[in-house]
Formats: sequence, structure tokens, C-alpha cells
Amino acid sequence: MRRSVSTVILDQFHHPTQVIVGGFATAVLVGTGLLSLPLATESGESARFLDALFTATSAVCLTGLVLVDSETHWSIAGELIIMVLVQAGGLGIMTMATLFAVALSGRMGLRARMLVQVETKTLQMTDLRRVVRNVLILSLGTELLLTLLLGARFMIAYGESFGRSLYLGAFHSISAFNNAGFALWPDSVVRFNTDPWICLTLAAGVIIGGLGFPVLFELRHGWRRPSRWSVLTRITLTLTVVLLVIGTVLLLATEGRNPRTLGPMSGADQLLNAFFGAVMPRSGGFNSIDIAAMYPSSWLAYDALMFIGGGSAGTAGGIKVTTFGLLAYVIWAELRGEPSVNVGRRRVPVQLQRQALTIALVGVGTVAASTYLLLVLNPHRLDQVLFEAISAFATVGVSTGITPQLDAASHALLAILMFVGRVGPLTLGTALALRAKTRHYELPEERLLVG
Amino acid sequence: MRRSVSTVILDQFHHPTQVIVGGFATAVLVGTGLLSLPLATESGESARFLDALFTATSAVCLTGLVLVDSETHWSIAGELIIMVLVQAGGLGIMTMATLFAVALSGRMGLRARMLVQVETKTLQMTDLRRVVRNVLILSLGTELLLTLLLGARFMIAYGESFGRSLYLGAFHSISAFNNAGFALWPDSVVRFNTDPWICLTLAAGVIIGGLGFPVLFELRHGWRRPSRWSVLTRITLTLTVVLLVIGTVLLLATEGRNPRTLGPMSGADQLLNAFFGAVMPRSGGFNSIDIAAMYPSSWLAYDALMFIGGGSAGTAGGIKVTTFGLLAYVIWAELRGEPSVNVGRRRVPVQLQRQALTIALVGVGTVAASTYLLLVLNPHRLDQVLFEAISAFATVGVSTGITPQLDAASHALLAILMFVGRVGPLTLGTALALRAKTRHYELPEERLLVG
Ligand SMILES: [K+]
Ligand SMILES: [K+]
Repeated sequence: MRRSVSTVILDQFHHPTQVIVGGFATAVLVGTGLLSLPLATESGESARFLDALFTATSAVCLTGLVLVDSETHWSIAGELIIMVLVQAGGLGIMTMATLFAVALSGRMGLRARMLVQVETKTLQMTDLRRVVRNVLILSLGTELLLTLLLGARFMIAYGESFGRSLYLGAFHSISAFNNAGFALWPDSVVRFNTDPWICLTLAAGVIIGGLGFPVLFELRHGWRRPSRWSVLTRITLTLTVVLLVIGTVLLLATEGRNPRTLGPMSGADQLLNAFFGAVMPRSGGFNSIDIAAMYPSSWLAYDALMFIGGGSAGTAGGIKVTTFGLLAYVIWAELRGEPSVNVGRRRVPVQLQRQALTIALVGVGTVAASTYLLLVLNPHRLDQVLFEAISAFATVGVSTGITPQLDAASHALLAILMFVGRVGPLTLGTALALRAKTRHYELPEERLLVG
Repeated sequence: MRRSVSTVILDQFHHPTQVIVGGFATAVLVGTGLLSLPLATESGESARFLDALFTATSAVCLTGLVLVDSETHWSIAGELIIMVLVQAGGLGIMTMATLFAVALSGRMGLRARMLVQVETKTLQMTDLRRVVRNVLILSLGTELLLTLLLGARFMIAYGESFGRSLYLGAFHSISAFNNAGFALWPDSVVRFNTDPWICLTLAAGVIIGGLGFPVLFELRHGWRRPSRWSVLTRITLTLTVVLLVIGTVLLLATEGRNPRTLGPMSGADQLLNAFFGAVMPRSGGFNSIDIAAMYPSSWLAYDALMFIGGGSAGTAGGIKVTTFGLLAYVIWAELRGEPSVNVGRRRVPVQLQRQALTIALVGVGTVAASTYLLLVLNPHRLDQVLFEAISAFATVGVSTGITPQLDAASHALLAILMFVGRVGPLTLGTALALRAKTRHYELPEERLLVG
């Protein structure tokens, strides 16, 4: 009996696109239904269909864009529904992405270095269970730790009750670790922007969740031996640090003179908020300074950071740092006239380069076409609309404030963008990779994750 | 003696980057010097250094962005200098790009299908002469025809004198064929926007010049046998038609309702001006409707059309339709799971795919970084500044009107962008191609031009 269940599940992995799309679509529909219940709203009346659909999509896809203020519009029950949807979306994406990575590694005849125990070439039930168990332990463990850190602070420094502190702590840790960006304050977390405890805890949650499960798993089991880290882990960590430093420096240099954002702050607070501001576009979605008041140059910097996104097989969005890093390697090799692209001592298969190219350019095309449609449909400017489109596509959830003002067609478009942005790169990446043929090269190949 | 001259010239082709960059830099410097002469200005005083440098760069690089109104600021002598610089820039880019294409064909061991007479594997003096002669005949012949068409119209319909008509005809044909976009009216050609004769003649000049010499040469000698056209010609013609149709349709659909642009016009005039508006971003640079009054969605459509640009080895800018088309083929092959990328019955070498990727993404990076700098330096919005940056990089020359308002550092940056946009893709493409090794594939390869 158990055998047949596992067979049924494993059979699905021949149709990864359907599994991922079907799974997320089901979660969105169930969430929409639940949020449409009268008990989900503060007013006790059923939410508008579009509000329920948009919020459910935003939660399941870990985005955080909202049409209605989360705290005042939804009841505690509604907030709990959002929390569960976020948790389901996060666990789902991590599990599925990791499983496909394992399955692909087996199929490609490569060592699944990210999961050192996996020795067989086919995906077996033990792997399925092991991956799910490890994802659960890692997610819930990290979230528990973050909950305690946040809850303690809410109780000690802000005089909240024990229960309320625990609730706020749990909601925002889940929101942070899953890169969902939902907050129970109308100003996101601007009110805490001089509190390093809150800001750094949230930032840590976003960064950790955004690294992706394979990297986290490898770090947990092999953090003492950086020399043996996989290429995936090295690229992800390097680019995470590089992008955080670039983001922090750019925000300090420009917003440091903005009287409506970092300008009036002390040096330490400027650094804290510039760092927080560099973490959130990739793709946490909280904000500790008023995004509408940021300079247009910072919006553009956000656009770039959001589009690149975080790590593969994690809760972050965007085309992923692995895709971006791989393309950088390809360009660098090409400019130096090297016939092959090597990362570390691994040769990157041509097929994989082409996948990265496809994911990046299909992403550019999707964002460009959506931005054009949003511009045609609404009276807003390119800087606002591009920011909104990339925020949805890269499932970041920050906004210059125009989200509720857009028309219904645009809201539907944003919901589609969030969905496509969440499942698109993964299904595209998996579908493309499943088709790849094994090839022969001089150096051993390594299958990087892209998308 | 002749032998040694040819040897000296041919030796240069081992250093194509220096030849191209050196040639254009010299032309810019000479042009700056000439435009700094008191006789070049209407006022009789020496032009500001930055005005002279910016105008000379804009002319040599076939861009058409201006800090000062061409007609009122420059004397007839100054206008003639601009005309000569444009002609030099156009002949220079066509000759050099074609020569490198021939040289590369020889080096790559491929048949130089675009120049059917070339049978030898090394570039010889006869080829050099033949290319220069053919470029001259084709350019000057087309420009003469356009001059007669425009001049006749200026004399008959607008009551200009014979001499003035000839002068206006020559200036604007040279400007059109070389995709330079300089006009001797402060509103570009808005005053002629109900005159199909003028508009269609200018559009024809821009389209023909923008196809590129290899395509024009092949069309001239083999227009009766489309089945034998090279892949280069087929991609260039197809994408030219496709992009013109898309641009026209988008402008009709959106600007057709804009009371400040196409709205008040008759249906025929709307069609004429939408078509003209679709031709000019690729990369003619004239405008028959007020660009500042266009909707932000049209600016974004222009951004995309400008970035893609026109044909290789011609007077157009941008990453070129060949680069864009090749990337589209790569993505299409990847999405369909095909291991190799075939265009027509030719397999596209992996090296060439990587070159196209490099040219496109280096272009994206250049535009993004420049736009960010312009945003930091100036109080303008993303839509205006991105438009300006792409217009300069793709050597188009249209503007939302902010060019003169930008600060001096931004003017220098725009001049650099124009220069990089003109010589960058070609030098990059040539330098990358010269490094390529011959490889073995199932299908015969064809060396497409990219950049
Ligand atoms: K998010
Ligand atoms: K131009």
C-alpha cells in the first residue's frame, strides 16, 4: 500500500510543471475561499472577491503586495489564514524545488552533492520523506527562534502582552523567513527603524530563508569546510554578500541626503536602515523607510536587486542569484575569449548557460510587457509602474504606494505576475533541465540550479 | 609602393578595436575643433567647448541629440561641418563593419556569401577597394536620389529657392540615410507631419540606411532570388518588417487617443505618423509628433525599439536586430527542448550565441548604470532619463526634451554613451569573433553578424 502511494507521488515527477502549477493554484483557490468567509474580515462581511484572491495569491506566492491593510481589514482569523498560506507557500516551494533538484541530479547522473546521503540514481520514497522532514525542521526551527527573539522584544520594549507578543512574533517570523513581507502595521516596520533588535532579526530571517534549502542544508552540515562547498553554495553566498554591500552603500550614498528618508537619522541608524533597505528587495518586502519618499535612483536600484532576487530553491523570488551569477560568468568568459565557461573547477554545460539566458530574458520580456500594459491601463509613471511590476514578478511586495489605486484589470495582471514569478522560473528551469541531454566535456560538469 | 600601403592598412585589421575606436575618436576631435571655430556659429563667437564636443560626437556617432538648436546656433558653415561629420561617420561605420565582416568570413573559413566575389581566404587590397567603392556608390547614390525627392518637394510645395531646396534636401537626406536625425527645424519635422512625400522619403532613407551594407548589397545583386538570401538578410528584413508593424500598431492604438499627438489627426495622417513614429526609434531620430506629449507607454515602446535598433554593418544603432533575432531563436530552441539552435538550414555556433548574449547584456548593463547615474545627477524622472540614456546608447537622438537641462557631467556621460553605443557593439562583436575557434557540428555553420 505504501509502495503504491510512493509510486503515485513519484509518477508526478514526470510532469513537474503540472505538480508545481497545480499545487500553487490549488493553494491560491483554497486561500481565496477561506478569505472570502465573513469570519476572515474585521467587519464581519465577506471580502470583495478580488481582495480575497489578490491577498491569497500574494500570501501563497510569498509576495506581500496588498490591496487592503492587513491588520485593519482582516480579523485575527483572516490573519491566521494568511499566515498559514504563507507557511504553505514557503514549505511548498522549498520542498518541490529541492525534490526536483534531487531528481534532476539523479537523472543527470551527477552526484547530488547538496544532499550528501543521496546515493541512488532514482528518486526514492526515503528521499522524498527526508527532504520534507529536513525542510520542515529547518523552516520551523528557524521560525521558532525568530519568534522568540521578536516576541521577547515586543513584550520587553513595547509592553505587549505575552499572547500578543507571541502572535506578533510568530506572524512576522513566518513572514520574514518565507520572504513574504506581510506586516501587521500599516507602515510595514517603519516604526521600528531605530530598533536594531527587530530590524536585524527580520533581516536575518529574510536572508536565511532567501538562501534556499540546498544552501542552508549544506551550510548546516558542512559549515566547517568551506573548501568542499558546492558551486551553488559558493555563488549564492558570494552574490548575497556582494549585493547586500552594494545595496547598502548605494542607499547610504544617495538616501543619506534625502530629508524624507535616511537624512535626519544618526549615522548608526542610517547604516541600520540602509542595510535593512538592501536586504528587503531580495525579496523580503518589508520596509523601514517610506518607499514613496525614496529617490527615483533608489527605486531603480531596487528594481535591479528585486529582479535578480535571492537563492534557488528557497523562499526568495526573482531570476535568482545563481542565474545572474552564471550569466556573469558566461559574459566574463566570452570577454576573455575563453571557449568554455568554468566556475571553480567545474565546466558549466552549454545547455545550462542557455537555460540561464532563457530564464533571464523571458523574465525581462514578462516584466517589460506587463509594465507596458500597466502604463496603458493606468495614469501612473514608469518609475512607479515598473517598480510595481518587478515587485510582483520577483515576489518582493514593496510598492511606491500605487497598488490600491490601479484598476481591476491591473490587479488581475499583478496577481498573474506574482503567480508566474513564483512558479515560472522554477517550472521553466525544471522543464528545461529535464530535457537536457547528457553531454561529454573535458572537465566534470556540475548542475547549478537556475531559476 | 602600393603593396606597402595595402600591407600597412591590412596590418591594422589585426587590431580592429584600435582602428574603429581611433578612427571615430579622431573624427570627433577634428569635428570639435572645426565646430569651435568662430565661423561655425551664427553669432560669430566660438561655441562653448561642451556644445562643440557634444554636437561633433552626436554627428559622428549618427545620433542627433543636441544641446543647441542646430539651425539657429550654427552658421551655414557649421551646418556643413555637421553634414560632413555625419557623412564621414556613416561611411566609416559601414566600411569598417563590412570589412571586418569580410575579414572574419575569410578567417572563419566560411564563404563570404554577402560579397559573392570574395573567394580568397585573406583580405586583399582589391576587396578593400571594392568594399569602399561599393559603400560609396550605394550611400551617395541613395542620398542623391533622396536629395532630389526632398529638394523638389521643398521647391514646389514650400516655395523655397532652388539653392535652398537643394541644400535642405541634401542635409536631410544625408541625415536620414545615415540615421543621424539632425534637422534644420527646431521641431524636427513636425511641421511636415501631413506631408506624405516628405515623411515617407525620410522614412525610406532611414530604413534603407538602417538595413546595413551587407543586406543592401545582397538585395541589390540578388533581389530576384529571395530563396538564396543569406540568413543575415532574411533575419534583418523579417525583423525590420515585424518591428515596424508592431510599432505602428501600438502607436495607433495608444497615441490615436492622445489629444496632443495623433488624436486630432485624420485617419490617413494617423497612419502616416504612426508609421513614421515606428521607423524613427530604429534609429533615425526624427520626430513628426511631439515626443514630450506622447504617453509614457509609448516612451517605453520606444525604449524597446531603440534598444533593439536596426541592421548590422549599417548606420543604425542599438544591439541590432540580428542580435535580438538570434537570442529569440536561442530561447525558442531552449523552450522546445532542442539541443541545437538552427536558423533556416544553418546551425548557429554556440560561440555566436554567447556573443549575442554578451552584446545584449553588456548593453543592458551599460544603459542601467548610465540611467542610475543620470538619476542621481539630475532631478528628472526615470521615464525621461531612461529614454535619454537609451536614445544616446542606441544613437537614435529622440528626446523627451530634457537634454539641454541636464548638468555638465550628464552631458559628458551622454557623449560617452553615444560613442560607446556607436563603436561598442561593433568592436565588441569583432573582438569576440576574432577569438572564436572553428568547431565541428552536424550542420554547416553560418556566421551571423551580431552587434
Ligand atoms: K516578499
Ligand atoms: K540617430
